[in-house]
Amino acid sequence: MTVTIAHLGPSGTYTEQAALAYANWVQHETGQEAILHPYPSIGLAFKAVAQAQVDLAVVPVENSIEGSVTVTLDLLWQLDALKIQLALVLPIAHALLSHAQSLEAIQTVYSHPQALAQCQLWLAQFMPQVELIPANSTAEALQHLEKDTKAGAIASQRAAQLYNSPILASGINDYADNCTRFWVVSREQPQTINHTSKLGSHSSLAFSLPKNVPGALVKPLQVFAQRDINLSRIESRPTKRSLGEYLYFIDLEGDTNSPTVGSALAELSAYTEVLKIFGSYNILKVRN
Amino acid sequence: MTVTIAHLGPSGTYTEQAALAYANWVQHETGQEAILHPYPSIGLAFKAVAQAQVDLAVVPVENSIEGSVTVTLDLLWQLDALKIQLALVLPIAHALLSHAQSLEAIQTVYSHPQALAQCQLWLAQFMPQVELIPANSTAEALQHLEKDTKAGAIASQRAAQLYNSPILASGINDYADNCTRFWVVSREQPQTINHTSKLGSHSSLAFSLPKNVPGALVKPLQVFAQRDINLSRIESRPTKRSLGEYLYFIDLEGDTNSPTVGSALAELSAYTEVLKIFGSYNILKVRN
Repeated sequence: MTVTIAHLGPSGTYTEQAALAYANWVQHETGQEAILHPYPSIGLAFKAVAQAQVDLAVVPVENSIEGSVTVTLDLLWQLDALKIQLALVLPIAHALLSHAQSLEAIQTVYSHPQALAQCQLWLAQFMPQVELIPANSTAEALQHLEKDTKAGAIASQRAAQLYNSPILASGINDYADNCTRFWVVSREQPQTINHTSKLGSHSSLAFSLPKNVPGALVKPLQVFAQRDINLSRIESRPTKRSLGEYLYFIDLEGDTNSPTVGSALAELSAYTEVLKIFGSYNILKVRN
Repeated sequence: MTVTIAHLGPSGTYTEQAALAYANWVQHETGQEAILHPYPSIGLAFKAVAQAQVDLAVVPVENSIEGSVTVTLDLLWQLDALKIQLALVLPIAHALLSHAQSLEAIQTVYSHPQALAQCQLWLAQFMPQVELIPANSTAEALQHLEKDTKAGAIASQRAAQLYNSPILASGINDYADNCTRFWVVSREQPQTINHTSKLGSHSSLAFSLPKNVPGALVKPLQVFAQRDINLSRIESRPTKRSLGEYLYFIDLEGDTNSPTVGSALAELSAYTEVLKIFGSYNILKVRN
């Protein structure tokens, strides 16, 4: 049997690298072949899995330097009935690619806004005069290099090999310990791949709160605190209804099928307006 | 006496609109004249106040649709000893400006990435083929219109008047209830302007947690929950040290000088690694 996986493309993005690592894991664990399908945006990769054009999608969730990929959180909330099957953590090492003879000859640098932000100190030090131009992905940024020898792009070493682009500088990210976390998401129906043999190490959920109830966030947090369930992350996103109304995205340690987490979620639903459980999963650390 | 105020420029940005509303408030409340100083980035406006080049800075914190302005949170943490004096809430109404004869003649649309995101449904419906190009501010986007009659820009009606740019469509934001919240920040020394006659309605703080302590977030949240202090917002930002380590930014209802909040903060410091209190303040709603 073949498994199809949507990801942000084109070939050479960090998301593709995470998807390839996942495909290897699938092959190793289940013997099934996985085929990657690149999409031009995170939104279209999400829609491909929601509309059953593919089995799974690999989407970036957060970077250790620049924080949340907010479009991923917003889409997971909007597109009902998607479940997280696995988390992937990928180390990120950026390189500056260009056909120019030297850094001094470069006038513009293209990359994904998160990659530009992750190299901002390096860029300010070594290329202070350069114009920074955002691209839809690190790999898409490379498309400018052939036409324009005064252009540079920030992307991975792997992208440099794929596109045959010279590397002028490597390891240019401002913080050495730069990682991005991805989620593997699927529709809700029973899965052909068993991702968690026992219980998952983490679970993710999101909720909105009833309107005009002062202190409404206190109760949901107490539900977890009373049971000593560790919240590894809380992220708020606007409901888009009015300023000061939020959705709260929570990652917690534990599996929704465990008695402790299960009882917390049963109590939690009494205090939330809408509660969505995105599932329990393990974390796979990917080597670069 | 004159008060100097830094803000993201050039003239015509929403931040300038908020800063003007604040200058009027200062004039009305204290009789002091306020002079605005535009800066090309939020970071430079922050540094101007930190380095005592100006008395205050007006900086955007969050938008009701697109969420946090993460650079503002990161800089408030990094630049020590800045205090929030007041919050401003400004309704946002975007317009499409261009010298083109009609929407159909426009090939590219420039604006700040948050403004492009806030109009994405409208753009997809009425200008699906157009190329979207990010600019440093909504006002900076207008600089492309004179040179290029096939270019459009998303900015405020006020910017249209200032720059004499024709409005092709107005009220184009996807959600009618679109507001941005700003903070007025100053250095820590005693202020010439008394912003809160009594206690502030809200306080803001941020903290990091000790490393490798499971459940470390539970205790800080319990401190507030036990006292029924409502957290109006929790936002996590990466520490930039390693994935899964966060700074937590909290807005709460109450003043740090009240007995309840004061005792919570005294207990809180026992559970945090670094705790920074950004002050207590009131909220000023600005009319458009």
